Amino acid sequence: MAVPVHKRSLALSKVYALLEPGPVLLLTTSHKGLANVMTMSWHTMLEFEPPLVGCVVSKNDFSFAALSATRQCALNIPTVELAAQVIGCGNVSGARVDKFARFGLTPAPARLVAAPLIAECFANLECRVVDTRLKTRYNFFVLEVVKAWVAPACKTPRTLHHRGYGVFMVAGETLKLPSRMR
Amino acid sequence: MAVPVHKRSLALSKVYALLEPGPVLLLTTSHKGLANVMTMSWHTMLEFEPPLVGCVVSKNDFSFAALSATRQCALNIPTVELAAQVIGCGNVSGARVDKFARFGLTPAPARLVAAPLIAECFANLECRVVDTRLKTRYNFFVLEVVKAWVAPACKTPRTLHHRGYGVFMVAGETLKLPSRMR
Repeated sequence: MAVPVHKRSLALSKVYALLEPGPVLLLTTSHKGLANVMTMSWHTMLEFEPPLVGCVVSKNDFSFAALSATRQCALNIPTVELAAQVIGCGNVSGARVDKFARFGLTPAPARLVAAPLIAECFANLECRVVDTRLKTRYNFFVLEVVKAWVAPACKTPRTLHHRGYGVFMVAGETLKLPSRMR
Repeated sequence: MAVPVHKRSLALSKVYALLEPGPVLLLTTSHKGLANVMTMSWHTMLEFEPPLVGCVVSKNDFSFAALSATRQCALNIPTVELAAQVIGCGNVSGARVDKFARFGLTPAPARLVAAPLIAECFANLECRVVDTRLKTRYNFFVLEVVKAWVAPACKTPRTLHHRGYGVFMVAGETLKLPSRMR
């Protein structure tokens, strides 16, 4: 059983380092009294600070209506311990199932947005939708991260990276090279 | 020394599985007789087929002018063997340095675009720019992958995933779960 993780506030300038490696995310919304979770891999950083994130939430996803209406969500970053929940949330629709209950995920209140944080994830990003110009064409939403939380105990998170059809790569060793890149 | 890798054509419907895990990419362009390479991590899939990829190439990058003018590029996916080249290409500007020569990368001709493929990378995606509506605001280009190449010998590529300031995660173990996700 996955357990809630202790977290602290993270400087917004450091958010990019969480998303840049391309982890699978759990996107949460809350709309008309219904909390939902979807599994998502199609996202990219767009700006360092304030952190802007572009992501695809399809019209076919139950979360599309919630995200469109509330313009708020959270991006929750799971590690390998949550692999079963990640795949489960990706395989069923929130139209039929309360995924928090089904998969034993704990909703925790966000500070600045009306979307639940997943307590078991090692990082949570509270987001507002700031641009929908590419929504019609590509289901592409631009999010601004307004508050970030991370588990101090989780230095090198074993994140999941989807290679297609249920095959995931798990984050491996760390390599440190002399860089001038942010 | 990195060596060129034997590659075969890859069905366009399978391209997403290469980019979805979030690997660092080497973006190549050719403009006014100058071939260039830049290191890039800010990219996302936007559509399965034809494969559409959104990516950020900053106005501060030397490649911005080439990509804007030619509307063509290649996305080359390096593995850990090319870590020194990846960091090198990210640390210097193509305005001053021929990065192919400096870092011992071999340019190979593309089939459909006028941009060099990097022979040492395990996969190469030939791309055309198809949408620049978010270019002014976010330096965001939408690319269509028109031809893809992959090394048959490289089943589980040890891709690099940037965690910020020269720290990379190297792709680790593979996990296979029952999925209905593409």
